[in-house]
Amino acid sequence: MHPNLIEHIKKFVDLDENEVQVLNRYTKSHSFRKKDILLSNGQVCRSLYFVDKGCLRMYFINSKSTEQITQFALDGWWLTDFFSFMDNKPSEYYIQTIEPSEIISIDFHVFDNLLKELPQLERYFRIIMQKNLAASQLRIKYLYQMSKEEFYDHFTTSFPDFVQRVPQYMVASYLGLTPEYVSELRKRK
Amino acid sequence: MHPNLIEHIKKFVDLDENEVQVLNRYTKSHSFRKKDILLSNGQVCRSLYFVDKGCLRMYFINSKSTEQITQFALDGWWLTDFFSFMDNKPSEYYIQTIEPSEIISIDFHVFDNLLKELPQLERYFRIIMQKNLAASQLRIKYLYQMSKEEFYDHFTTSFPDFVQRVPQYMVASYLGLTPEYVSELRKRK
Repeated sequence: MHPNLIEHIKKFVDLDENEVQVLNRYTKSHSFRKKDILLSNGQVCRSLYFVDKGCLRMYFINSKSTEQITQFALDGWWLTDFFSFMDNKPSEYYIQTIEPSEIISIDFHVFDNLLKELPQLERYFRIIMQKNLAASQLRIKYLYQMSKEEFYDHFTTSFPDFVQRVPQYMVASYLGLTPEYVSELRKRK
Repeated sequence: MHPNLIEHIKKFVDLDENEVQVLNRYTKSHSFRKKDILLSNGQVCRSLYFVDKGCLRMYFINSKSTEQITQFALDGWWLTDFFSFMDNKPSEYYIQTIEPSEIISIDFHVFDNLLKELPQLERYFRIIMQKNLAASQLRIKYLYQMSKEEFYDHFTTSFPDFVQRVPQYMVASYLGLTPEYVSELRKRK
């Protein structure tokens, strides 16, 4: 049983008791410790991950051999490398827990069967992906529009709890800043 | 009748003759001239736009009062401002034709009814959005990873026809470069 996932799905589509049982057959639960790796560069990303509780980050190793974080996922968010997941190709990303996390996964090879058995999940995932696309459009706009300092101010004002929860050097990486620059910005504020 | 849209949908889901008629009731066709404006900053983006033939660009006016292009859409692509479309809020974007274009639109206030009448379109749009998310993840990775010159090289190598079709200053804007810098890069190659 995954009460948080069920509740999340029921916000958007109906799901009766029998259908919850079907969903359970297609999902797996995992308890991860802090810093456990769910996906490594070079592996195919075979699952959609739902954060039941905890926090994930997705990053790649850039040309300076440092970790560049591109996405976070908190409680109630989905995360995957879509290209790797859809095309069965090796990923260039890592997905790792930032804190002890309960993760629910749906594997690629059963995803289509799940959607056939519970077609209302097509609507659920369409809405989730639509929301993700909206966020992604905004993210790209910010990357073009904002100076690094504005981006930092915007992020810390919009997501104060998140900034408390995630190590400062990871927030810096996500915003494309050095940890030293973020320290300096924090001192100035 | 919208043969290109029908064909595009049939790549992913079934659609019989009656269902094509239903789809036609929910869609509108528009012929636009070059540089016609479909959406202006401050208006609510009330439609999903499908490029039947032609080319669209989406841009906003940045703090230097210049146009910053964030997306293009060619034949067979969907484009909208998702936040404005979903939340019925004024858009910060413009959507404009780059060449004479045939555009098919689905309005927000009928989109849910269309999906109720043709539930297989939930699957179609879920797959389209999944592909868009994959492209968006890659785009964000490139924005973090590549130097401006690498981004330009990658783009012109990956989409040579597109670079021929779209004015050079628009490609420069999309890549976050000045037109002068792109001219210089082209001379160096």
